[in-house]
Amino acid sequence: MTAIQDTYSDEFAHCFGCGKLNEHGHQIKTHKAGDQAVTVHEPAAVYTGAADFAYGGLIASLIDCHSAGAAAIFWMGSNGLVIGQDPTPRFVTARLEVDYVAPTPLSTMRVSGTADEIRDRKVIVISELSVGGTVTARGRAVMVRI
Amino acid sequence: MTAIQDTYSDEFAHCFGCGKLNEHGHQIKTHKAGDQAVTVHEPAAVYTGAADFAYGGLIASLIDCHSAGAAAIFWMGSNGLVIGQDPTPRFVTARLEVDYVAPTPLSTMRVSGTADEIRDRKVIVISELSVGGTVTARGRAVMVRI
Repeated sequence: MTAIQDTYSDEFAHCFGCGKLNEHGHQIKTHKAGDQAVTVHEPAAVYTGAADFAYGGLIASLIDCHSAGAAAIFWMGSNGLVIGQDPTPRFVTARLEVDYVAPTPLSTMRVSGTADEIRDRKVIVISELSVGGTVTARGRAVMVRI
Repeated sequence: MTAIQDTYSDEFAHCFGCGKLNEHGHQIKTHKAGDQAVTVHEPAAVYTGAADFAYGGLIASLIDCHSAGAAAIFWMGSNGLVIGQDPTPRFVTARLEVDYVAPTPLSTMRVSGTADEIRDRKVIVISELSVGGTVTARGRAVMVRI
């Protein structure tokens, strides 16, 4: 299945978090999975915080870029559009909230969640980040369509 | 004047955002300035979002690590301790809120702000991020002492 980021136009493909053309970046990939959006990410070893845990900025970055992709996925679904066939709208972040509920091991991370609200210009994305099945962070992002 | 991050013990000096021993990281430096804490950061060119703007994750990362340093600065001040002389407490993020009020040019960034609340185990840090005098993001972080 096509990752939503692979359908962004080249103009929006240089983001450090999710741009397929940023060779130094995280290049996260977000997929539709039923009524959810899911991002699975393998972090590089440099993104350490304390001990063997991820630094908070990586968590925030993943939830941020996941939310942009998820907003596009949910908005397209709500409008009967097909990913990879119809043009993908691009959302930017107006507000990001992250609750760090436990230290996040620097290991394979899964961000998943749904939409709390879908409007013409705004989508609110709710997500949780987990490692090995344990939720370590929760996110809420207000995304605006440009 | 001593940056608070340069007084963190080596155990906490590997953070990608603010660790002086993470050679790949941002190595941000936060200083006390009156009743404020200030971080000035020159971003690398790879941290692009769309066009010539910074990606949202960098903004969140800077506000996050700034808030950890600021919490230590404010807590030490509140307890009559001297930076670089007394041991530096280490704070981690319980909750991070970022409002993106305008696109942030990928240029010299300044994060500054004060404490909204200082308790024994918790400091709430309020901050704004600006480029060339224009505020582009605002942060609120709930920091917990470990």
